[in-house]
Amino acid sequence: MTKKADKTAKNSLKAVPEIDNQPSSEVAPSPALEVVHRPGLEKVVAVRSTISCVDGDKGVLEYRGINVADLVRYSSFEETIFLLLYNHLPNEREMMQFNTLIAKQRGLPASVRDAISSYPVGMHPINAMQSAIILLSGEDFYADDVSSPQHNIRRCISLIAKAPTIIAAFERARHGEQPMPAVTKYTLAENFIFMLTGEPCPPEIGRFFDKLLILHAEHTMNASTFAARVIGSTHGSVYSAISGAVGALSGPLHGGANERVLRMLYSIGHPDNVDKFLDEMIMTKTKIMGIGHRVYNVKDPRAVLIQDFMKNLLEIVPGEGRKNLYRTALMLEEKSKERLSHKGLHPNVDFYSGIVLDALGVPGDLFTPVFAISRVAGWCAHWLEQIGANRLFRPLQEYIGDHKRPCIPIEDR
Amino acid sequence: MTKKADKTAKNSLKAVPEIDNQPSSEVAPSPALEVVHRPGLEKVVAVRSTISCVDGDKGVLEYRGINVADLVRYSSFEETIFLLLYNHLPNEREMMQFNTLIAKQRGLPASVRDAISSYPVGMHPINAMQSAIILLSGEDFYADDVSSPQHNIRRCISLIAKAPTIIAAFERARHGEQPMPAVTKYTLAENFIFMLTGEPCPPEIGRFFDKLLILHAEHTMNASTFAARVIGSTHGSVYSAISGAVGALSGPLHGGANERVLRMLYSIGHPDNVDKFLDEMIMTKTKIMGIGHRVYNVKDPRAVLIQDFMKNLLEIVPGEGRKNLYRTALMLEEKSKERLSHKGLHPNVDFYSGIVLDALGVPGDLFTPVFAISRVAGWCAHWLEQIGANRLFRPLQEYIGDHKRPCIPIEDR
Repeated sequence: MTKKADKTAKNSLKAVPEIDNQPSSEVAPSPALEVVHRPGLEKVVAVRSTISCVDGDKGVLEYRGINVADLVRYSSFEETIFLLLYNHLPNEREMMQFNTLIAKQRGLPASVRDAISSYPVGMHPINAMQSAIILLSGEDFYADDVSSPQHNIRRCISLIAKAPTIIAAFERARHGEQPMPAVTKYTLAENFIFMLTGEPCPPEIGRFFDKLLILHAEHTMNASTFAARVIGSTHGSVYSAISGAVGALSGPLHGGANERVLRMLYSIGHPDNVDKFLDEMIMTKTKIMGIGHRVYNVKDPRAVLIQDFMKNLLEIVPGEGRKNLYRTALMLEEKSKERLSHKGLHPNVDFYSGIVLDALGVPGDLFTPVFAISRVAGWCAHWLEQIGANRLFRPLQEYIGDHKRPCIPIEDR
Repeated sequence: MTKKADKTAKNSLKAVPEIDNQPSSEVAPSPALEVVHRPGLEKVVAVRSTISCVDGDKGVLEYRGINVADLVRYSSFEETIFLLLYNHLPNEREMMQFNTLIAKQRGLPASVRDAISSYPVGMHPINAMQSAIILLSGEDFYADDVSSPQHNIRRCISLIAKAPTIIAAFERARHGEQPMPAVTKYTLAENFIFMLTGEPCPPEIGRFFDKLLILHAEHTMNASTFAARVIGSTHGSVYSAISGAVGALSGPLHGGANERVLRMLYSIGHPDNVDKFLDEMIMTKTKIMGIGHRVYNVKDPRAVLIQDFMKNLLEIVPGEGRKNLYRTALMLEEKSKERLSHKGLHPNVDFYSGIVLDALGVPGDLFTPVFAISRVAGWCAHWLEQIGANRLFRPLQEYIGDHKRPCIPIEDR
């Protein structure tokens, strides 16, 4: 693999490594393959991937083999997008070209902007996002031709650039405001805050938001990423696939936990109330929002990183209420460490990200869309990987219903 | 099962049978479960289902245990929807109530109608459908609460009723025409043709269209149905799930074959040219559109049924061109039977459905949306079944990329 990565690094337009999705031991599907029953696809390896990897015992998350802790320290969200799409970090010349490309692609076609401004204002913004992404196919007449890797990657870049614009346009439309034009000189993070609020984003706030975007960009296989790959496997366009992924993320069992963590912290109200809250949760065996993660046996590395820069963020963001919220979260973490960590339950990424987003002035129902703005990068990488070595997803069902039921005409029923 | 079906038949609101999606031998997931590698999910049973079943050797397709050939003969599309949702055919009283419900739900909220009329007119109608279905969540403020089976089934009925209205509204909007109001007294099939053309649908045409809708309503596990279930497994709303399913159907490897069959028949041009065409296809090993199906070793029963009523349809639809098309198709079937049936290649549902849709006056790029209008019924049944016995789909990936790659700051790259 190292060899391949080195080779591809020389030619960024062909840098996405090709993957052989055939079972190792055979090229053609074997008719003798045994049928397995796995509702929920438990312990079924459905794809091979080179995009991201989690070590759940050590608490390490890597994108394309690079530790996210390093990416948060040494790179930007734009560099991370480049890494996910091209499998190597850009040099300065590549970065400049890539930034120009993203900045150029930020604006929405007038027809899409108009349609978003006509959307039902009562929609949840994550639903508006699922719907509006598809509208971009209206200006891409060859969207269903996925045969050119160059075109495919350009489409991904365009979609990643436009996702924040879509959310900002909807957010302003539902308040009866005109959309803000995207500003070329801003980073993707700064530009989103600008388009949302109409005010230039202070660079230090932009940096925090940028780090948050890096941390949410990708996270191995999960229901939304899998949905993108299932739709991509029919050669569904990038718009169809990413829209579907947003749909999966909108499900309460998948996205949206950080919004609920915030509400939980509000309801606890003060660090002194944490013990009483924990007593009740443990007694009633209620899941505590933001604690525990399927793939980590230690504290989620993203929670560690967010907590780290949150301290600095809270110094520059005014408001005793937010400091109180943060102290409540810290106390909850400490107390739950004493009482729950023996069960492998530790804070996950959602535990602190809600507080950060709230501190950045993002409304609660935009938390999941912000997550999606970032994750579009990972989804796009998976769509490209799927298209590049495709196998149509066609699982089986076990039919357990009746057979040969009679069809009696209605008058005799 | 028969017992259960009988019991449930007495109470239509609770009629969807409950399914245990746990592996038979155990209630909790076993930590000892072996990891299997199945890219494309080949021979992986991902769900248990009581919705539909195919016998590929006998050429039998059953919905809820009833042969579709019987449904085409003795029932209507509305009865078939009822059957798929409630697991039994309605009696006359139930049918009347159900028809009233569907007729009432046909209209779109003004906000959704307005948004569709602002859609980019260059969008493929199947993409417009994927996008517009989500807009319906804007009037359903509890869309993400899927805890009530009664509400869930009502949402399905509403979505099934509105799907044709969405397509008709977009079709008229792209021609600069106002949408037609839905007419209560028409069947779903008649009403769609009316909303599309602005002219009342002759009852005999409505009946053909109705049969076509029955035949496309459901077809076991496939990529779009699976996409609906993956999104549903996150408790994604019915709008999110069905929109995602439409996205999968829009992929060229899944939907859209009947449009291509029609273009192929046009290009053959005359029954006399079939031999030459087949020579070329066989010599160049090119797949012939509409011939061959993964799950049928005999002629697709839906092709048999469509061909059957198509003869009558062509008698009432004028035009020598369409008769020529039909004769070309018949010749192609006959000749390919001689030359390809030993390979298990027989006409599938798409082989004749394009000709029927063309004869009914449906434009080519509405073929897949029409398929979707019908399949929404099956997708909804699967969404309900998934929600009713949920297991979040969480397959694994095999990571085959690098580890511990260094993150060199950009100035040193």
